[in-house]
Amino acid sequence: MRIGIAGYGNLGRAVEIIARDHEDVEVTGVFTRRSVSEIKTMGAHVFSYEELFDRRDDIDVLMLCYGSSSDLPKCTPELTHFYNTVDTFDIHKEIDEHKARTDAAAKDSSHVSVISAGWDPGFLSLMRVYFSAFLPSSSVNTFWGRGVSQGHSEALRRIPWVKKAIQYTTPKPEALTLASLVSHPLDDTDRHKRVCYIAAEKGREDDVRQRVLSMENYFSGYDTEIHFIDENDALFDKCQPSHRGRIYALGQSGVYKENKHSVFFDLELSSNPELTAHIALACARVCLMLSLEKRYGAYTVFDITPNDFCNIMVKKPSSFL
Amino acid sequence: MRIGIAGYGNLGRAVEIIARDHEDVEVTGVFTRRSVSEIKTMGAHVFSYEELFDRRDDIDVLMLCYGSSSDLPKCTPELTHFYNTVDTFDIHKEIDEHKARTDAAAKDSSHVSVISAGWDPGFLSLMRVYFSAFLPSSSVNTFWGRGVSQGHSEALRRIPWVKKAIQYTTPKPEALTLASLVSHPLDDTDRHKRVCYIAAEKGREDDVRQRVLSMENYFSGYDTEIHFIDENDALFDKCQPSHRGRIYALGQSGVYKENKHSVFFDLELSSNPELTAHIALACARVCLMLSLEKRYGAYTVFDITPNDFCNIMVKKPSSFL
Repeated sequence: MRIGIAGYGNLGRAVEIIARDHEDVEVTGVFTRRSVSEIKTMGAHVFSYEELFDRRDDIDVLMLCYGSSSDLPKCTPELTHFYNTVDTFDIHKEIDEHKARTDAAAKDSSHVSVISAGWDPGFLSLMRVYFSAFLPSSSVNTFWGRGVSQGHSEALRRIPWVKKAIQYTTPKPEALTLASLVSHPLDDTDRHKRVCYIAAEKGREDDVRQRVLSMENYFSGYDTEIHFIDENDALFDKCQPSHRGRIYALGQSGVYKENKHSVFFDLELSSNPELTAHIALACARVCLMLSLEKRYGAYTVFDITPNDFCNIMVKKPSSFL
Repeated sequence: MRIGIAGYGNLGRAVEIIARDHEDVEVTGVFTRRSVSEIKTMGAHVFSYEELFDRRDDIDVLMLCYGSSSDLPKCTPELTHFYNTVDTFDIHKEIDEHKARTDAAAKDSSHVSVISAGWDPGFLSLMRVYFSAFLPSSSVNTFWGRGVSQGHSEALRRIPWVKKAIQYTTPKPEALTLASLVSHPLDDTDRHKRVCYIAAEKGREDDVRQRVLSMENYFSGYDTEIHFIDENDALFDKCQPSHRGRIYALGQSGVYKENKHSVFFDLELSSNPELTAHIALACARVCLMLSLEKRYGAYTVFDITPNDFCNIMVKKPSSFL
């Protein structure tokens, strides 16, 4: 499988690293909107974004390693006109809309796109479906963190007057305890605190604060804490790529509801971009397979059978049953 | 949805209990090979097994609540000629073969059958696929118990000279620790001990022991412990229906494999039959849906998209993403 990497930030670099573990995957190009000479890869050729449209014969699947807030909504449908694509679009509420736009482009041009292929949305989305379907009368609560949210940090950095920014998502300890004991759905605001560390232009702190707190889908309506710090603060350097996703699902059954069933799911990752890249690459394999089978269109992991994921692995499907 | 229940042991009864939680599910008949007057249901009508073939107009999906060792391999293909069916066939190594036989019957008669629809195989099988596909260079270890294995207990009870029998599956503590720390696949014999409590005819203990230890797929090659106890031993009465399934998945990534990724999945159930029944009923809903869509054939959970499971729930698919 020959992949192209469009965008070479944390995720793009992680895709290149992860691809080295796959003998049968070749990175045939990294495409950047920055100056080509500025980009130092692990070995892959760097091309300008404009050249993307000339390299269709060298790329089976194009990995879109851009941010979700402004790039992917435009890029994914656009580039799916030319390539099979995989993205990690992570604005949960807008996935339906993003999928519809991408699906039209994919069917129009006989391509396959797998969108929102990360750990959440993606991996944890699958867990929520199965936990909900398989535990009777269940409530399912997801907790993220403590860890840096790439999407949220990037969203902060797009605000004018922001020089540097990092957003840590932290679960509230009392909510973790509650979710492990009681079958009751908790609001996101009950579950998480969003802690922002921002280096802003002097005197613009209030403007920045207002922009942050009013940002729909990211911070508006969430329990958000903002710290303005110096742009040379060590916090920006030692920023950890680790993250965590936990799901508690509790259900009950029986004539008198006397039987309890619980699931605890705990994903700990020491590199958020690398785990995301690995999941995106697994989806790229499925993407290529679907494309060879001419099953054109846009997919989320919900539209892919577990068998399709089995088929990209070395072991036989029956070995997982 | 109108369901029939074929077989009224622990599982059949649990299906009836669970169905009462579903407003739109009606149990239109329990079918038994025992004497009809012997069966006390929670309210459902009891018919003899022979009447099963006359009640096709009253049943959308037939729940096959029989054991896997001798009944289901024969019953599932046979009854799928007449009904949409769901079973909980749990001999992991024979699922492919069982599916092929059932698939032929289903396609022949325009029915849908969902097989092996329990928590393992079933729920945990799905977890193994996703954990393997989504964690880079991962090893995935499943632990069952401590809990009674219904299938294994039933297999023991089918041995001549056995009056009563219960089999507890117990994870080995040192293996649990190892799996949580090291990315290395462990053999089933390394992971579990199978502890059998058997009341046998006097003088036949050695015959029974030999039969147990040579039973393929169940005890042969496994770390098996056999205790012969009195048939009036309280252990047979206080036998707990609780069970547990844990999966450890560990993987790594990075230029120097410096990044670790881990999943810990822990399912605790206080009623094994009721959780199995709930999963089987979720699969029955999918079964009926597939049948209405004329997608005839035999399915495991691997052949069903997560979207299909979303569609049997009240919440919109996008709410899980």
